Amino acid sequence: MSRFVDPQHADFRAFNDSISFDRRLAPYDIAQSRAHASMLAAQGIISDAERDELLQGLDQVERELNDDVFPFSDSDEDIHMAIERRLTELASPVGGKLHTARSRNDQVATDVAMFVRDAARRAHDAITGVGEVLIGLAESHLDWPMPGYTHLQRAQPVYLSHHLLAYVWMLLRDRARFVAVLDAASVLPLGAGALAGVNFDTDREMVARELGFTSIAENSIDAVSNRDFVLDYLAAAATCATHLSRLGAEIVLWSSQEFGFCELSDAWSSGSSIMPQKKNPDAAELLRAKAPRLAGHLLALYGVMHGLPLTYNKDLQEDKEHLLDAADTLELSLRAADGMLQSISFHRPRLEQAASDEFLAATDIADLLVRRGVPFREAHGVVAGLVRAAIDQSKTLSELTPDDLAEHSPDLDEEYYALLRDRTWLEKKVSAGGTSLSRVREQLECARAALR
Amino acid sequence: MSRFVDPQHADFRAFNDSISFDRRLAPYDIAQSRAHASMLAAQGIISDAERDELLQGLDQVERELNDDVFPFSDSDEDIHMAIERRLTELASPVGGKLHTARSRNDQVATDVAMFVRDAARRAHDAITGVGEVLIGLAESHLDWPMPGYTHLQRAQPVYLSHHLLAYVWMLLRDRARFVAVLDAASVLPLGAGALAGVNFDTDREMVARELGFTSIAENSIDAVSNRDFVLDYLAAAATCATHLSRLGAEIVLWSSQEFGFCELSDAWSSGSSIMPQKKNPDAAELLRAKAPRLAGHLLALYGVMHGLPLTYNKDLQEDKEHLLDAADTLELSLRAADGMLQSISFHRPRLEQAASDEFLAATDIADLLVRRGVPFREAHGVVAGLVRAAIDQSKTLSELTPDDLAEHSPDLDEEYYALLRDRTWLEKKVSAGGTSLSRVREQLECARAALR
Amino acid sequence: MSRFVDPQHADFRAFNDSISFDRRLAPYDIAQSRAHASMLAAQGIISDAERDELLQGLDQVERELNDDVFPFSDSDEDIHMAIERRLTELASPVGGKLHTARSRNDQVATDVAMFVRDAARRAHDAITGVGEVLIGLAESHLDWPMPGYTHLQRAQPVYLSHHLLAYVWMLLRDRARFVAVLDAASVLPLGAGALAGVNFDTDREMVARELGFTSIAENSIDAVSNRDFVLDYLAAAATCATHLSRLGAEIVLWSSQEFGFCELSDAWSSGSSIMPQKKNPDAAELLRAKAPRLAGHLLALYGVMHGLPLTYNKDLQEDKEHLLDAADTLELSLRAADGMLQSISFHRPRLEQAASDEFLAATDIADLLVRRGVPFREAHGVVAGLVRAAIDQSKTLSELTPDDLAEHSPDLDEEYYALLRDRTWLEKKVSAGGTSLSRVREQLECARAALR
Amino acid sequence: MSRFVDPQHADFRAFNDSISFDRRLAPYDIAQSRAHASMLAAQGIISDAERDELLQGLDQVERELNDDVFPFSDSDEDIHMAIERRLTELASPVGGKLHTARSRNDQVATDVAMFVRDAARRAHDAITGVGEVLIGLAESHLDWPMPGYTHLQRAQPVYLSHHLLAYVWMLLRDRARFVAVLDAASVLPLGAGALAGVNFDTDREMVARELGFTSIAENSIDAVSNRDFVLDYLAAAATCATHLSRLGAEIVLWSSQEFGFCELSDAWSSGSSIMPQKKNPDAAELLRAKAPRLAGHLLALYGVMHGLPLTYNKDLQEDKEHLLDAADTLELSLRAADGMLQSISFHRPRLEQAASDEFLAATDIADLLVRRGVPFREAHGVVAGLVRAAIDQSKTLSELTPDDLAEHSPDLDEEYYALLRDRTWLEKKVSAGGTSLSRVREQLECARAALR
Repeated sequence: MSRFVDPQHADFRAFNDSISFDRRLAPYDIAQSRAHASMLAAQGIISDAERDELLQGLDQVERELNDDVFPFSDSDEDIHMAIERRLTELASPVGGKLHTARSRNDQVATDVAMFVRDAARRAHDAITGVGEVLIGLAESHLDWPMPGYTHLQRAQPVYLSHHLLAYVWMLLRDRARFVAVLDAASVLPLGAGALAGVNFDTDREMVARELGFTSIAENSIDAVSNRDFVLDYLAAAATCATHLSRLGAEIVLWSSQEFGFCELSDAWSSGSSIMPQKKNPDAAELLRAKAPRLAGHLLALYGVMHGLPLTYNKDLQEDKEHLLDAADTLELSLRAADGMLQSISFHRPRLEQAASDEFLAATDIADLLVRRGVPFREAHGVVAGLVRAAIDQSKTLSELTPDDLAEHSPDLDEEYYALLRDRTWLEKKVSAGGTSLSRVREQLECARAALR
Repeated sequence: MSRFVDPQHADFRAFNDSISFDRRLAPYDIAQSRAHASMLAAQGIISDAERDELLQGLDQVERELNDDVFPFSDSDEDIHMAIERRLTELASPVGGKLHTARSRNDQVATDVAMFVRDAARRAHDAITGVGEVLIGLAESHLDWPMPGYTHLQRAQPVYLSHHLLAYVWMLLRDRARFVAVLDAASVLPLGAGALAGVNFDTDREMVARELGFTSIAENSIDAVSNRDFVLDYLAAAATCATHLSRLGAEIVLWSSQEFGFCELSDAWSSGSSIMPQKKNPDAAELLRAKAPRLAGHLLALYGVMHGLPLTYNKDLQEDKEHLLDAADTLELSLRAADGMLQSISFHRPRLEQAASDEFLAATDIADLLVRRGVPFREAHGVVAGLVRAAIDQSKTLSELTPDDLAEHSPDLDEEYYALLRDRTWLEKKVSAGGTSLSRVREQLECARAALR
Repeated sequence: MSRFVDPQHADFRAFNDSISFDRRLAPYDIAQSRAHASMLAAQGIISDAERDELLQGLDQVERELNDDVFPFSDSDEDIHMAIERRLTELASPVGGKLHTARSRNDQVATDVAMFVRDAARRAHDAITGVGEVLIGLAESHLDWPMPGYTHLQRAQPVYLSHHLLAYVWMLLRDRARFVAVLDAASVLPLGAGALAGVNFDTDREMVARELGFTSIAENSIDAVSNRDFVLDYLAAAATCATHLSRLGAEIVLWSSQEFGFCELSDAWSSGSSIMPQKKNPDAAELLRAKAPRLAGHLLALYGVMHGLPLTYNKDLQEDKEHLLDAADTLELSLRAADGMLQSISFHRPRLEQAASDEFLAATDIADLLVRRGVPFREAHGVVAGLVRAAIDQSKTLSELTPDDLAEHSPDLDEEYYALLRDRTWLEKKVSAGGTSLSRVREQLECARAALR
Repeated sequence: MSRFVDPQHADFRAFNDSISFDRRLAPYDIAQSRAHASMLAAQGIISDAERDELLQGLDQVERELNDDVFPFSDSDEDIHMAIERRLTELASPVGGKLHTARSRNDQVATDVAMFVRDAARRAHDAITGVGEVLIGLAESHLDWPMPGYTHLQRAQPVYLSHHLLAYVWMLLRDRARFVAVLDAASVLPLGAGALAGVNFDTDREMVARELGFTSIAENSIDAVSNRDFVLDYLAAAATCATHLSRLGAEIVLWSSQEFGFCELSDAWSSGSSIMPQKKNPDAAELLRAKAPRLAGHLLALYGVMHGLPLTYNKDLQEDKEHLLDAADTLELSLRAADGMLQSISFHRPRLEQAASDEFLAATDIADLLVRRGVPFREAHGVVAGLVRAAIDQSKTLSELTPDDLAEHSPDLDEEYYALLRDRTWLEKKVSAGGTSLSRVREQLECARAALR
């Protein structure tokens, strides 16, 4: 019996029903129903026998879902009603008691929180995995020099290990964000009822313990209106994907014939339908391309929540598709980053040659002057003049003559030539966090410890 | 034979393959292949017999897809390669000739453009439908007064017809936007090859004519790099959905017990899992909730295109899921708006009572003073004083005494009381586009003509 | 002297220069320069006398900026170069030594991190303030009943205090997010140099201590490429603004004549240029309107970071305007929420009348049947039938006769009428987090403690 | 006199007032006030003498604003009230008559529409300018070969002119979009009053003519609620900026030492604060970086409009800052693109060398086989095998021996070597829109005509 006279319109059903996507929440729905039934019995709201019937019914529902034989009905608008309907068929009339002291509003918030918790854990672990691959690469390419770039112009040489480790620090921040997401999603909504609490003396702490939540939502209105934990997940995912997009973009760049710094394995590359010679870094391109998708999901959910009056509104149903696709996309991206990096190869000669460009030593020459008492700003000007002179004469810096040098500064002598010859530019970057080998080794230790 | 030694990794396939979603482009892919084959034969690049074999093979592929018996293979990475593979099985070795003078790059751009053109046409027609429903409602509620709101405060009375027609003008602008999208997507990419044009003397105009494109892309690099028409579609869709979100939000508001202006039919409403009395306007809420999703898709595609070097990059594959979901969402939303409005009922007594609030006449009293020579800004001040006096004394405006009036202005006499008594406030809004009945009738005519 | 021959084009300057907005970073730039100079001297890189000259110069620069007499030059492209230029004028030639062992890349990242830290602290404190206002309102409206809404339909009655406290929990989560932002921005970039570390034996820990950072960036490349802390701030701000937008939207709604639940004070309201009676809740509307602006800033910065190769790129300059406007907008919004709420008044009669709608007791009637052994799902159906009968007969639920009741269930007797008469619906919501007074009192205690 | 007792709170003023940014609308506000006053007199609503007083007052206000001596008052909340206030000081009491038959709601919508129209025209012209620069570059680099890229891998050679012209087609679409924006903003809101029309027999067509609008808004509610034309402008601007971001990204890439294809002039480049050798393409980087900012503005306004009930709400005030910054940013970007391109220089030897990579001929070899009757798919496989063989043996394609060739296909003979030797790969791309010189010349003609 319902208060409605007419059945729902087919177009309304198509617009309104969520079962095509929320069926992925089934495992959480069953778990929370088990905990809810146990609590109802523990509090004497249903009998132990009724609880047992409910639990057996839920076991059967779970088996049917796992075996893909669950008899979905056309009238199932969402997974929650589908499971309750089926349970009532299996455990009639006791099945109808499961929804005592519960509403779909707190139920669905709980399912989503449980999904977010699992997704945060999965992201955490996958990030750790990619971090380990990067650390492995840093170790095996510890002393490979390459140009460091600012503005995509060669700036100062660094070790490839140092560059790769930069991504590990990004990933460590990402991982910390997912830990915070896990916390944010560990406050139990269940027990808030529709919005006001329920007419029964329930034990929400018991349910929280059973489901692994660390606390309960203290305000029933907030409990059913809140989707912060989804926003938190989406923001963490968008930031992580943005980091991966930078990695992807660099690999695309480095795979070009012009850079020639690295090559993806065949197993992570694509060909062309028309150009037989092509080997395309599709995996890296897609890694780059996925970040806006996650930002789009975040944005969309901000839009849904914007200006929404309390408490539950149907608009909140939009949370799920954004969340599910975001989790799938992020997890796939992390798996792709992992696999792609495991089989990437770098080309030492190309890296080394690019890193030996003498202009990369310009700062070092300026610092040589600084050590002789020239203020840095002035030293910078002197070297800029040398650079201009070299370019004008189509010379390298070491091809400038002592007379050329003398025109710019009285402080440039043989040590100038030695500096360009000895190429200790990298090893002079001795400051903490710098690219000298000893500092990179320290850093590796530190990153490895942090990742553990 | 391929230039690759190792097979693609399963994780790469999962990340890279697009067949799970681009199979929806199959009808377009087949249509363009037919046109391409015909053109190749007309230009003597293949023989007529080869063309006939290709066309027969494509007919067979089409039947298999329509009958859901197309034998997809695990190795099919996208619908284009799946169709070509199958065609080659059916029409070997001639099947292998179809890709002459064509690349996946121009092929996929063409498929997407064809999808956009159809989607723009569907949106156009669905918008027309909703516009007609609104015009019907405006006609049947022509002279129903209601409060007009600014800042959600009652401002001046209007007719419900006038309010509903406001949405028709929004929809007319939406429709014009989709006409522009149709134009934007009517420039044929096919024939651009991978990026540089092809080594054959093709006839792109012929292909364009056959497929209903109005012109050809004049630059092969632009042809394969361009997704403007998808951005245009997404922007048009986001704006239209935003209009629908305002309509949805108003229906949610008007369905509240506090407003009580309208009620959705049972066929377009939902109940509550726990509160038996509830009749929720879910359809209107979802109409409100979908706009950010479309804005999110637009945003994501802007993100993908941002800073992308020419020409084709794998990143462009991301266009499809955004487009497909946007089209589905918009079309479902328009269908929902249509059906929901067809069965909505308005409550004249509630509307009328709210519209008879005397404070809504404040501007009219000020204008009465203006007609007597008082500058408007001064008249505004006088009436503001009357309003304050009325509120302070808990009176309506007509309950103020002549003495009360005299304190504020010498120009307020019996006509003041007549103005409040006669309630001709609506009919005095005689300016073009105003809410007086004659103006609304003009407008209805005008809107009906524009919609046709 | 520079390596360039030609001067910069005026249009380039207009496009490139950041001094119009980054001058707000001056206090941070001076503070970090002080710490940097002290460290250089402590490490023997400059002499103590040089340090003192630099510090005196910086004092002078600070005074000039504070007194608005700093002589900006047309050639100042950003605040960092302006300060160094001025310092060199004041303390020539020692001024030129300040940039030893530092680059603008690590300098600007440090300034931005310092700004974020202060902004996070300000947000934290302002949120606490709004939370306290809300707690005060909850205390002073502890037992004011009002309808709780789902889908904007009256659902179950709650206390106004309970509803207001829902926002406190949102704000507490917001505050926690800003604490995390503060942590994220407390890793010192300075000392990373341009990207590779510097050629001097610096003491970055000393600088960190002096500036209140808790650790140093462990990788120089990451240090200059990273803007995660800005993204974190923007995400926290967007979420907080979204909460405020829900509050604003509810106040707009409740201020309507139809709801009539509250009224903003004159000091927080606007009039109309044309309608003298209008009192508009502009502050609440703007509170609603600001959230998308913050989401837009977040989104834009995600876009900037997307696919950006390491290390520093000029694109990163875009971080500042988004951040500055976001901080200004959020802080203004929080101040507005604070002030607006301090002077809001609620209307008990309107709230109470709306809360006494008998349909709000439908769940309670169902639960009455549950206590008599009827499964909830069945009880729900019985009450839905009663509701339909009442609507069909234009009766309230208590106007239904015992015969009416008997048609729907044998279990409905005098207690049914008592339940509707006694109105203990709110006080029956005894579950943890529910709306019964004892639970709200518990919650108040808990929220007050959390806020402290 | 106002209906308010208490003055507005300073914090409310800071939150609510718009004069800090809407003063830029002053010229439009004055122009529309002139037209409004003339119409009021023409319709006999005010006298001709009053009109003349108003026009003289407006002249004075305009002079004061132009000369920067307009006496702003602390109480001016927006430019509209500031001008009316000042006018009333100058032309008291007639100044108070200007607001007859007008509301700030239609007034502000009209100002914004006028701004959008001017901004659309400016964008149109600036785009034309950039297009002309690109056409000039295409002409002067007509036959410079370079590699065309897909997936940032060398794909097939193209002429630099062809590549540059791709951007012209993007810009032509952008320009068409701004023409549509101009149309969308040419529907006059003025005369709609607050929302319902006005109590006077106005002549809106006269005002439209005078201000250059092509028609009047047919529905007063829509007139004050509508901001579609701002959304249209922002979408057009975001798409245009996205095109510019691709151009910027390519110039950054091509300016790298690795590509070495081009160099920006000194006048459009920046140095480094620490690295004296650096010449950074900041202009190109910023061109890349601005697109997300415009997308962010669009997104934010979608958010503001989402779910907003009709008619005017204060939320709409948020339209202005997004619009103003978007217009400034786009115009600055176009000016930067124009200037930067005017002084860019390309390096023919680097481009030519990169274009002579023999692997770029792989498709041509496949097409050679196709002409001999081999199905394309099969020919593709043959050439892929050759490519693999060449890579395995570290040979170029022309270094493969006839025996090597014979292993892969019986159809490869001397013509194979001729094809690689003659380098007619570009000139063979004879299809319409292809890169052969004759086609590029056609295209240039076509683009030049379209731009005119």
